[in-house]
Amino acid sequence: MTLLSSLYTQLRLPHFKAATEFGSTSPPSLLVKNSQQPECSNSLFPPANQSVAAIVFGDGSSHSRLYPLTKRRSEAAIPIAGNYRLIDAVVSNCINSDITKIYALTQFNSTSLNSHLARAYSGARLSKEGFVEVIAAYQSPEDNGWFQGTADAIRRCLWVLEEYPVVEFLVLPGHHLYKMDYQRLIDAHRRSKADITVSVFSRTKDEDLGFGIFKLNAENQVLEFRENPEMNAVLTSISMENLANFDENVKYNFPSMGIYVINRDIMIKLLTEHFPTANDLKSQVIPGAISLGMKVHAYQFDGYWEDMGSIAAYYRANMETIRRTNKAYNFYDRASPMYTLPRHLPPSLVTDAVITDSVIGDGCILCKCRIRGTVVGMRTRIGDDAVIEDSVILGSDSYHHNGTSEGEATSIPVGIGEGSHIRKAIIDKNARIGKNVMIINKDSVQEGNMEANGYIISGGIVVVLRSAVIPDGSIL
Amino acid sequence: MTLLSSLYTQLRLPHFKAATEFGSTSPPSLLVKNSQQPECSNSLFPPANQSVAAIVFGDGSSHSRLYPLTKRRSEAAIPIAGNYRLIDAVVSNCINSDITKIYALTQFNSTSLNSHLARAYSGARLSKEGFVEVIAAYQSPEDNGWFQGTADAIRRCLWVLEEYPVVEFLVLPGHHLYKMDYQRLIDAHRRSKADITVSVFSRTKDEDLGFGIFKLNAENQVLEFRENPEMNAVLTSISMENLANFDENVKYNFPSMGIYVINRDIMIKLLTEHFPTANDLKSQVIPGAISLGMKVHAYQFDGYWEDMGSIAAYYRANMETIRRTNKAYNFYDRASPMYTLPRHLPPSLVTDAVITDSVIGDGCILCKCRIRGTVVGMRTRIGDDAVIEDSVILGSDSYHHNGTSEGEATSIPVGIGEGSHIRKAIIDKNARIGKNVMIINKDSVQEGNMEANGYIISGGIVVVLRSAVIPDGSIL
Amino acid sequence: MTLLSSLYTQLRLPHFKAATEFGSTSPPSLLVKNSQQPECSNSLFPPANQSVAAIVFGDGSSHSRLYPLTKRRSEAAIPIAGNYRLIDAVVSNCINSDITKIYALTQFNSTSLNSHLARAYSGARLSKEGFVEVIAAYQSPEDNGWFQGTADAIRRCLWVLEEYPVVEFLVLPGHHLYKMDYQRLIDAHRRSKADITVSVFSRTKDEDLGFGIFKLNAENQVLEFRENPEMNAVLTSISMENLANFDENVKYNFPSMGIYVINRDIMIKLLTEHFPTANDLKSQVIPGAISLGMKVHAYQFDGYWEDMGSIAAYYRANMETIRRTNKAYNFYDRASPMYTLPRHLPPSLVTDAVITDSVIGDGCILCKCRIRGTVVGMRTRIGDDAVIEDSVILGSDSYHHNGTSEGEATSIPVGIGEGSHIRKAIIDKNARIGKNVMIINKDSVQEGNMEANGYIISGGIVVVLRSAVIPDGSIL
Amino acid sequence: MTLLSSLYTQLRLPHFKAATEFGSTSPPSLLVKNSQQPECSNSLFPPANQSVAAIVFGDGSSHSRLYPLTKRRSEAAIPIAGNYRLIDAVVSNCINSDITKIYALTQFNSTSLNSHLARAYSGARLSKEGFVEVIAAYQSPEDNGWFQGTADAIRRCLWVLEEYPVVEFLVLPGHHLYKMDYQRLIDAHRRSKADITVSVFSRTKDEDLGFGIFKLNAENQVLEFRENPEMNAVLTSISMENLANFDENVKYNFPSMGIYVINRDIMIKLLTEHFPTANDLKSQVIPGAISLGMKVHAYQFDGYWEDMGSIAAYYRANMETIRRTNKAYNFYDRASPMYTLPRHLPPSLVTDAVITDSVIGDGCILCKCRIRGTVVGMRTRIGDDAVIEDSVILGSDSYHHNGTSEGEATSIPVGIGEGSHIRKAIIDKNARIGKNVMIINKDSVQEGNMEANGYIISGGIVVVLRSAVIPDGSIL
Repeated sequence: MTLLSSLYTQLRLPHFKAATEFGSTSPPSLLVKNSQQPECSNSLFPPANQSVAAIVFGDGSSHSRLYPLTKRRSEAAIPIAGNYRLIDAVVSNCINSDITKIYALTQFNSTSLNSHLARAYSGARLSKEGFVEVIAAYQSPEDNGWFQGTADAIRRCLWVLEEYPVVEFLVLPGHHLYKMDYQRLIDAHRRSKADITVSVFSRTKDEDLGFGIFKLNAENQVLEFRENPEMNAVLTSISMENLANFDENVKYNFPSMGIYVINRDIMIKLLTEHFPTANDLKSQVIPGAISLGMKVHAYQFDGYWEDMGSIAAYYRANMETIRRTNKAYNFYDRASPMYTLPRHLPPSLVTDAVITDSVIGDGCILCKCRIRGTVVGMRTRIGDDAVIEDSVILGSDSYHHNGTSEGEATSIPVGIGEGSHIRKAIIDKNARIGKNVMIINKDSVQEGNMEANGYIISGGIVVVLRSAVIPDGSIL
Repeated sequence: MTLLSSLYTQLRLPHFKAATEFGSTSPPSLLVKNSQQPECSNSLFPPANQSVAAIVFGDGSSHSRLYPLTKRRSEAAIPIAGNYRLIDAVVSNCINSDITKIYALTQFNSTSLNSHLARAYSGARLSKEGFVEVIAAYQSPEDNGWFQGTADAIRRCLWVLEEYPVVEFLVLPGHHLYKMDYQRLIDAHRRSKADITVSVFSRTKDEDLGFGIFKLNAENQVLEFRENPEMNAVLTSISMENLANFDENVKYNFPSMGIYVINRDIMIKLLTEHFPTANDLKSQVIPGAISLGMKVHAYQFDGYWEDMGSIAAYYRANMETIRRTNKAYNFYDRASPMYTLPRHLPPSLVTDAVITDSVIGDGCILCKCRIRGTVVGMRTRIGDDAVIEDSVILGSDSYHHNGTSEGEATSIPVGIGEGSHIRKAIIDKNARIGKNVMIINKDSVQEGNMEANGYIISGGIVVVLRSAVIPDGSIL
Repeated sequence: MTLLSSLYTQLRLPHFKAATEFGSTSPPSLLVKNSQQPECSNSLFPPANQSVAAIVFGDGSSHSRLYPLTKRRSEAAIPIAGNYRLIDAVVSNCINSDITKIYALTQFNSTSLNSHLARAYSGARLSKEGFVEVIAAYQSPEDNGWFQGTADAIRRCLWVLEEYPVVEFLVLPGHHLYKMDYQRLIDAHRRSKADITVSVFSRTKDEDLGFGIFKLNAENQVLEFRENPEMNAVLTSISMENLANFDENVKYNFPSMGIYVINRDIMIKLLTEHFPTANDLKSQVIPGAISLGMKVHAYQFDGYWEDMGSIAAYYRANMETIRRTNKAYNFYDRASPMYTLPRHLPPSLVTDAVITDSVIGDGCILCKCRIRGTVVGMRTRIGDDAVIEDSVILGSDSYHHNGTSEGEATSIPVGIGEGSHIRKAIIDKNARIGKNVMIINKDSVQEGNMEANGYIISGGIVVVLRSAVIPDGSIL
Repeated sequence: MTLLSSLYTQLRLPHFKAATEFGSTSPPSLLVKNSQQPECSNSLFPPANQSVAAIVFGDGSSHSRLYPLTKRRSEAAIPIAGNYRLIDAVVSNCINSDITKIYALTQFNSTSLNSHLARAYSGARLSKEGFVEVIAAYQSPEDNGWFQGTADAIRRCLWVLEEYPVVEFLVLPGHHLYKMDYQRLIDAHRRSKADITVSVFSRTKDEDLGFGIFKLNAENQVLEFRENPEMNAVLTSISMENLANFDENVKYNFPSMGIYVINRDIMIKLLTEHFPTANDLKSQVIPGAISLGMKVHAYQFDGYWEDMGSIAAYYRANMETIRRTNKAYNFYDRASPMYTLPRHLPPSLVTDAVITDSVIGDGCILCKCRIRGTVVGMRTRIGDDAVIEDSVILGSDSYHHNGTSEGEATSIPVGIGEGSHIRKAIIDKNARIGKNVMIINKDSVQEGNMEANGYIISGGIVVVLRSAVIPDGSIL
């Protein structure tokens, strides 16, 4: 705790009491004596934009469950909701929570992610020392290999992460969709004087327990971590009916969200002293900290949270964005907007479209077509008499020119051709769907890999690959 | 001409011959001897981004023909085509013509124009010494009044405009919609070795001759200027049939576009020596230069050009943007894109809309509605069962909050209410149209001022004012 | 207070209690129940970046006491301390206090100020809805004149200032040099539940009482305002010895700093209902509010504060910046940095210089010269054998090219010529001091106007005008 | 050639003739007929900003000859000349040559390079489709390893590099210091109708022949490439006396600069068809192209060029920057400025310094010290009575705080301590030199590795490592 205090002192920030002074109930003096060295303040903790640095992981893994969307990009760079990339949700959470020191660690198919982050978030000057810094995996005299896991990545980048004397690191997966006020998570961490606080999901999830589950005591302290719980046991133990019957001392099971607040000095000690060879935070460092007797607390989150563990989950998350009475993720909220790469596209041009329960990205060209239950991405072109239903169209990177840069001898332009019919499909960027194509999963295949033909089927959803060409008249 | 040469020399730019060397047909040596002081080059003129500065006038006039759209903004700041402001067309022309030193002179209702320009175009660093600099009218010890006209404005700002040793100034009205490659205009100016080159429109216009007309000789040299020609005489003289019959020496009449290329030293002499009290370029300085025997050439432009001389012209220009086979103004052209303020709005959310021949700006919320022949601006909200036809909706500045910043005690949100019907109308920004409102010009009024009720009628088009509130059930 | 509450509610910001809950001493629950609608928080007030908008006045007045530095620029645009403009101090205070909605109202010689603000502070995206928006005086159908004073300027711009539903406006003169944590001022205002809080200087000033003085009671409430107090009376009454002897109920006199926190609704009422024709805040609106019985509090500031009331004060402020143990204004403080226009100038090139107690701006070229007690501005060129003492050199806008853009037939380059000697002088930007010039105020003139010769003398300090040419061998 | 023509056509750019029309001497018509589809122009080739993409290699190699400067950064990220990074020279050359599509390929210690590029060059909007895009090495399903060489790196990134339909790629090493107008190189390439043009150095170099040498015929066509020539043979054959005596048909030897212009289609064919497994451009692909009979031309460059092949070369390049009559590299040239990360640092504060033939970066704090023949980097702090001679001080990343972020228990602040004496040394960033330290290479060591003590010696130059601590009183 003295280290914490010295860090606070070291920050020399204008207005806060050290955390140890929390609980003082003496009323602030009405007679303020000002000077350049502030004497007191009503703020209890240092402001997050000076005392917290976020570490965002740009990649899920190299064996992505979201293939083929991750064929050319990392999970966090996948387009979502017409105008965004997945990473925008987490970065926007940070900015809206006033956490503006953000490191993004990337290595898997990182090109488009790096480009997006650099163009969307660099160059901001107005906020004091704010930045989104991309740290791509790199070779060095000491380390010739790739990041071996989350713990290894942070350890190798410590010399960069140590740049600012922050108090806590906030570790965040970059490919989840949710809105969280991290300020509240950090406040809870500080009030509990924990070494580590993990964010846990307070409701039942029927999948996506990839981050393991925690047992807590009544004070939300973590007692135990289990990595790959059997689903049934978990579902039983965390069911809400059971919860009501348990007494104060019984422990509960909560799914981890992979989100951790770790005190800076604790992080350094864990990675360099206690577990200098551990590669993974989730399965090695966090359980190790518990076993060392460190104070690990849990913070319960009960909002919308989707961790994109499958094509089906990605599809579902997109479908959520088109509901008008959106309990899931509000893109139209002035108080916590979602940021992304600024654009100056022309407005969408609509010749004669019937559009139902859909979302239309910027700069689309929609001819005489019908669109229902669909997310239509930026610059999507849809031809006459096309019908699109219950689908996710990722759009294109530029308006089509004949003789494309990708050089193939095709006369099929980027977009959806005339008379085509698409149902329950995901069409990746720059795909060229010909005329009178049927993408309807006609054989009701659940899983299938037709990558040579430009698509795969996952969970019954047809996914057309990036830049794929689907010839006129094809029936998928 | 020696002054021109010295300016070229002074620029010390990497690769061009002075204009006087034009016409040399000696083949460039294949044996290039390089050094830091270039010896020769195949470029005939200095690059426009170093040798030309554009002077854009942000305001038409204080007696705007576009009232009430200009009640709170200058003409050049009027939204157009869903996502843009008028000034974006001229600034984009400059950027696409590689003219990146741009001064915008403003004074009339300039707040939103200044804000738009500062946010859309400042801060660019990649292009060498490029900028869009807003020069707002200002008080000084010498000048306590406002700009008295285009010539007066340039004269007062000469101390700023002289900052870079450019060769020519390109004078541009800021409120016209057209695409012109100014590079070609400047090349023509340089090849003809003119002192001044005026851009003239090469086709018949049945209105908008506000910049006067020119008589030319066969070499496109200007012989005479007439400010307020009678329309019939003009129409006759420039009709294309007549043109064919005229012989080489006959002079023609061409409408001026208000666009001038003026050599820098000529500009300075005209404004400070020859006509030190002239306020207007069009009617005083340009005719004066002709009468002084200066070499004034014309450059004929035959593309799309709309100078927004009336509410009807503004309405017409918007209607042009929704035609699919757009001969008028191509917003989807990668080679000459239209720039504007970058945004990161959410995609448009469409519940159940039938949209025909329309343009939909970014981030709209369209419920169960029918939209036909309409430009729908950014963030427009349209309620259930609304019908919008042949209209221009300028959109809103933010998503509505109850208890608005403008404070009025209204329960009507920004946007178009349920069950309302709008036909051939312009709805300015942030207007609040209630439920079951009919904006159909029921009495077929041509001109009418109902400003107290929140609208005027001009040329048979109903224009609802910015932030106006039209109560439920109103019939206009 | 209900209006305040509703504003707080309206803001719908993530984490604060309404001000009315201040004083509650119940400990925050350790068991945090999270949701997207926050339930409680440990923050007492809404964050400043959402609830406060700063209104900065770019101009002192048209009869500037800083002439000739204000001949071509407003007071707030005067360069200071080598690398900055005066306005940077106030804008940096705002940013460092997390106030990021900043309106700058300008009209007097505003060109360079507008340009500086647009290039230095626009385009920032990382901070939530932060901006520096320049509002230049403008003509409109309703208002054809210039701003008639601070109150008139705010009243005319209310339609812009009302854009965000902030709780308070913070009114700031733009030409003062000081560091203040406005957050503390605003906290004091909120704790006292005042309608208006004025910042007063807590120490004796022997000049610059231009904002008048206040009488306070023991609770810092303002009882009376006097605009033009006699100096002696003031000095006596605020002397510290006297202070100690006064009893609790005696009122004191404090100089106003021209800095006001005014609740948004109070501002609107004062300007539009109570005093709809008042032009000045200081002498009309604030005294009027006191007379209406509004609650006007004072906030005492005892740090460094210089309000640049004369050439002598400006000179003194520059001299402060070169002291190493700087109690005045710390430019090297990481916790509260001073922002300005980002540059990428080359490093200063020094041939053979002896430099004592001086400050050297970016990109200077210093030959064999001696510099003592001098502020040397950006891109300053000093020739061989020049001696500069106790002076302020404002530098130049670009590296000199023979045949300058300002066109005069001079062979004297921008900068200080060989063998010249400058003592206790201010050399404005782009001045061309020839060889062997003596600027030493040889006749010990106190005040003199030799503007035709390129300089004036004020308070014994020679001020060479912007772009002035001082021929070789001149002795001033 | 038809492919070239089709590419030109495809670009649909406003004003150029296809290359095949080069040589036409018919005078351009004075009667310009304008339309939106340009008919003719006086420009012979398409503008570089649309038709050329630069590929910059951010790393020299993993076995850097510049160690220890490359311990934590790639070669291109090494600070140079006080205010810059090496990569700035090449990127500035591109921008000044109007080449604004720039890809930087990085993998070795790339963190600080990526950060610099993202912050210095991203976000520019004014230039049409300009960008500096960092492509960090990445893992993907197909490629799990690092870039294996320049050819391999380009091949793996082709899917990104193909984004724009450019005509040529310009391949550039990122760690060379020189000014070249690439426009002239590209013009020479286009006039000669070569498939590949290599830039060769036209003068003798006594080292740094790492890119091999070329034999040319009289028309500058490349006949042969030799990778590791013996120095003497080279020196003899390219000596200028010999040159004069050779007849027309004799071939010469010229050192390659590692700079190549390669037609886009040729690049794709070479990497994917002809040499699909070649890893290196220099030793495999270029010689291969010659052997295939492709037309490979040479472009002779005779300006200043330093390729930083050793600590000694790096030291020498820095020393060049402090010469006043700089033939080497002019940092003060308005026509071709050097760009870098924009900063807003305070001016340098000088207490009492004698500075001779030195360069002082931004924001230094120089106490009573003597500095001679030294490059002093940004934010350098030099204590009283220190003497610095013939050295390169790289400066620091921030102003020192006691209790540094790097955590060591040292009381020595960042910078040069009081009474220390430094001669012919390179002090890397954030080093902490104590009081009365002598860094004078007292034993005249030529090569030595004392890394454990915080320094190495290379070529007789002491190099103190980044963040090293040199205790008080040390003598090196």
